[in-house]
Formats: sequence, C-alpha cells, structure tokens
Amino acid sequence: MPGCASPPAMKVLITGGAGFLGQRLARTLLAKGSLGGQPIAQLVLVDRVAAEASDPRVTAIAGDIGDVAVMRDAVAGADAIFHLAAIVSGQAEEDFDLGMRVNLDALRLLLDLAREGGRRPRFVQTSSVAVYGGALPAMVTDDTPLRPSSSYGMQKAVGELLVGDYTRRGYVDGRILRLPTISVRPGKPNRAASSFASGLIREPLNGEATVCPVSLDTPLWLLSPRGAIDAIVAGAALSGDALGSQRAINLPGVSVRVGEMIAALEQVGGTQAVARITHAPDPAIEAIVCSWPAAWDTSRAARLGFRGDPDFLSIVRAYAEDELGAAK
Amino acid sequence: MPGCASPPAMKVLITGGAGFLGQRLARTLLAKGSLGGQPIAQLVLVDRVAAEASDPRVTAIAGDIGDVAVMRDAVAGADAIFHLAAIVSGQAEEDFDLGMRVNLDALRLLLDLAREGGRRPRFVQTSSVAVYGGALPAMVTDDTPLRPSSSYGMQKAVGELLVGDYTRRGYVDGRILRLPTISVRPGKPNRAASSFASGLIREPLNGEATVCPVSLDTPLWLLSPRGAIDAIVAGAALSGDALGSQRAINLPGVSVRVGEMIAALEQVGGTQAVARITHAPDPAIEAIVCSWPAAWDTSRAARLGFRGDPDFLSIVRAYAEDELGAAK
Repeated sequence: MPGCASPPAMKVLITGGAGFLGQRLARTLLAKGSLGGQPIAQLVLVDRVAAEASDPRVTAIAGDIGDVAVMRDAVAGADAIFHLAAIVSGQAEEDFDLGMRVNLDALRLLLDLAREGGRRPRFVQTSSVAVYGGALPAMVTDDTPLRPSSSYGMQKAVGELLVGDYTRRGYVDGRILRLPTISVRPGKPNRAASSFASGLIREPLNGEATVCPVSLDTPLWLLSPRGAIDAIVAGAALSGDALGSQRAINLPGVSVRVGEMIAALEQVGGTQAVARITHAPDPAIEAIVCSWPAAWDTSRAARLGFRGDPDFLSIVRAYAEDELGAAK
Repeated sequence: MPGCASPPAMKVLITGGAGFLGQRLARTLLAKGSLGGQPIAQLVLVDRVAAEASDPRVTAIAGDIGDVAVMRDAVAGADAIFHLAAIVSGQAEEDFDLGMRVNLDALRLLLDLAREGGRRPRFVQTSSVAVYGGALPAMVTDDTPLRPSSSYGMQKAVGELLVGDYTRRGYVDGRILRLPTISVRPGKPNRAASSFASGLIREPLNGEATVCPVSLDTPLWLLSPRGAIDAIVAGAALSGDALGSQRAINLPGVSVRVGEMIAALEQVGGTQAVARITHAPDPAIEAIVCSWPAAWDTSRAARLGFRGDPDFLSIVRAYAEDELGAAK
C-alpha cells in the first residue's frame, strides 16, 4: 500500500555528542522523536568521553573521531550525520597539528566513511564566521569570498569545500551552517578566541569575576544556544533542492558591540554583575576576533526559513532562564 | 665584509619534474643558473619516472610524491619548491581517490616537510581557473569567491587555503599562480578536460586528425608554455611583501573562443590543417570547461610584473617555432 507505509526509521550520528551543542541537539532530537518526518530509531553520540545515554535509542561511543576503528561502526547505516566535533579557534591556532587532525582529517574520514556506505546521508557541518577575514565588504553575504586569517578558519573553509564537492558528487547531502559566535554558553570558558563572549555574561551572573580581553566597541555576531540548536535541526530538515549547489549558509545572528552586551548584563544582573568584569586587552584574541565580519546580509537564510534571536537582551534572559532557573 | 659576501647557493625542488612544465622549468632554471639573485647549487626533480639529469646540478628522483620516504630527502634543505605535480582535471573527476591523494594529500605532505625543516622555503603552487565555477561576475578578479564545480577545482582551492595558512604561520613563503589553460602543449593528449585546447592546434599541425569536443563559441583563457614558465619563474622571484596576505594571483591570459583558435590555426597551417578537425561535442567536457570563467581582470598580476601572450596567433606561431622547427 504505497502512500500508507510508515516512513523508514533513521539512524542519526552526532560527533561531539558529549559536548555542549551535541548534548542539547541529542536531547532535542530525542524529544522530537523524528527528523524531517522520519522517526529516529537510533542516535549514536561519539565523543572523547562517553555521552549521556539513558535513552534506549542512544548509543554512546567514547573514542577518537579520527580513528577509523571507532568511526566505521558509528557511521555505518547513518541516514543523518551532525558533525559538531572541533578543536576551537584559539586552540587550533596554538596547536596547529591538533587542529589539522581534528578539524580536517577527521572530517575527511567521516565523509569517506559516509560515502562508502552509499546511502548519501544528510551531512550537517557546522562552520564559522572565522572562514572570513582580510578586507571585507561592508555587508557579508553567503557569496563573500572566504579568506580566513586563522588556522581554525582555514580548516573550516577547507571543510566547506570538501562537503561541497562530496555533495556535488552525490556522496553525501551536505549542508554547512556558518554559526555566529554562540553566546551565552553555559559551563566553563574554553579555548575559543570568542570564549569571552559567553564569559562576560555567564561569570558575572554566576557571581564570578571575568576578564574582558577586547575593547568595548568590538563588534560581535551572536546566536544563543537555543537558536543554534533550532538552526541545526532546521538545516538538517531542509531539502537539498532548496540549497542548490551553494551548500553554505550564514545563519542569522545578533550584531552587537561588547559595550552593549555589558549594558544588557546590567539590565539582567544589575551593577554588581557589571562590577565583576575587569578589562585587560589581549592582542592575540583581539587580532582573531577583529578579523571576523560584523555586518551581515542573511536574507538567503531568512528565505530558507532560518530565524535568529530578536536581540542580545533576549539572549541573556534565555540564559538566565535555562541555566540559572530565573523566571521558571 | 657584509655586502661583499656571495649570496648563498640554493637547493631547488620541482615536483612533477619529469613532466611537460617541470622539464621546461628545470631547463630554464639551469640556463639562468640562479633564482632571485641566488645561484642554484642543486636542482631536485621528483616525478613518477626519472627526469632527465645530465646536468651535474640535477638530482632526479623517481617515486611517489605522496610517499614520505621519497619526499623527506627531496625536501630537506630546499630553499625553493615548485609544486607542479598534479592529477589533471578530467582524471581527478573520474578517479576521485587518486585526485585526493595526489592533489591534496601529497601537497599536505610537502608543506609539512617544508615546515619541519624550518627554512621557510619559497613555495610556488600552480593553481587553476577550475577553482571558479557557478554564477560568476562579469569580470573575475583575484578576489572573486572560489566555488569550484569539479573535484580538481576543489582540490586546487583547498590547496590555496593550505598554502595561504602555512604562509601566514611562517612555515613557507607561498605564492599561488592560477594558470590559464596551457596551450599549445606539445606531446600527447592528456586527461585534462582542457586537453583539446592544445590538441586542436597540435594534431593538425602535426598532420594528425583531432576531435573538437566543445562548440565554436566556447570561451577559453589561454597561456603559452613559454608564458607559463616565465610566470612561474617570476612568481618565485617576487618578494612576499609585494603579495601581502593574498598569495593567489590570476595570471594574464589570452581570452579566445574555439572558433578564433581554429582561425589562427588556418593562418599558420592552412585549410588542410583545419580539415583535420572533426566536431563531436562531449557533454562531460563541455560541462567542466563551461564552468570556468572567460573574462578576467588581471590588473593585480600586471602590477606585480606578470606579462601574458599578446594574442593566440602568437601562441600558435611560438608552438610552430619551438616544436616544429618553423622559422628557425
């Protein structure tokens, strides 16, 4: 009875599945129970450490995503792959070999294993504003040339070219989401050059001191964790035809200067929160962050159905709600 | 006595050193005896087959450029590296794994070995018009976004990003020369999608039949072998400061349609030469060739001192002179 048959159940893989975005994505997919109308039968989470796996649909694998022995079973039969694992910008700049191994070689392995299976899985790759750099036009669009000025940005740009060609050849059905800087991330600072964009809000709201390493007029392009997860799920559900041959999408963000972020912090946490910030410019971080563009035309993303956050104050309030139990 | 000391002698490496461009480059460098004012003490030619090595300065190595055992000695101590070895466009499209291994993995190995030595060698990488594709602006400049629509073009674009970042980090001093299609190449047809751009002239002038796989109004962007060698030598001699962070240069070419090429053939070889061409469109070749741009702004290359050929007729005459002994 064609037309009445249930859609086949899917296997979904998330790399970086124990990480901040990976865990949230896993919870969201499990709660939805499906992706693009197909039920999720199995969700494989690969990461260096074992991810949370109380749901019977979850298989958690602890291992190196660059290790073919770890990855072969993880990828086999996958209908959708979310590749979130990465060495972040600051660390990839400091440790070039580690960045190349994780951000480039592991992606290549993943693409080759996906291709071997012959299932042409949906392949969602997160990318970054760091693919841009140098002299930028007044407004960055999906078609602005990629001229990274960090090794992380280079690795992400190379990844975009790889996913693009594997897609063109029919090996995977790729979609590349260029995420704005995620803010406010919960948890600890990491070694991303943009880590301060979360710390500046998170630490003061948690009663802790924090350092602002850039000047107040530094522009940032931000997306909340909720917004990032919504975009990643929407990106996987999009039809490939809607994307055509340009598989990379600049996601909508909030354009804000550091001074405005601190003003939003004051609205939510008061002057005592702002007083926990000390200012100590770090030229290495400033150099990386200032190479990223600040003004964006994301009309293509809007046409494809992506929505960002309304403003930075909403982002801070959502953080307080999700992580601090405010307004619950 | 500073200022009176002789410049130190150089070791120069050419990959693809037994190939068409590699052999010509080797002969040119040996005849010049120096590069950027420094005498050439040793010229290493690596290729799958042993290159011609009658000059005492030449060391010919036959081996796989992807093999670290072959490449370690070849790269050790090199002050300038010309990376010409590649799997050509048509073959890279047909055999994806071979193209990835040679056009991407071998480049990576070469860059890593160059980096290990800590000498920051000049690194000349030939690239291609195939890095472009999709909807192109009316005029392509050095800053037009790279959107390859072939695996060869993707591999070359990835190579540009790698050389750019290895240069930024101070591991090599890279310069990327985007060569127009080389015509007229002597010898046999190869598996480049653009192979016909030489065969169309070469075979008729040699009294042989040839097939034109594209329509007469197909635009091409061409450079003679002499022009290519001049550009490669000039590219190596340029100061890195003149290039800044944008290490890729679109070299000047001659913009010509296939019909005009045949008219030039008629001028040099007469109607009997033109009669040796049969027309049989090949959609696979047309698809690749038509994805390349035809109109170029090469003013940056001109400012950097690069000169192309005056017109296609001169190219055909130079071929007849160099290869057929005409006008000698």
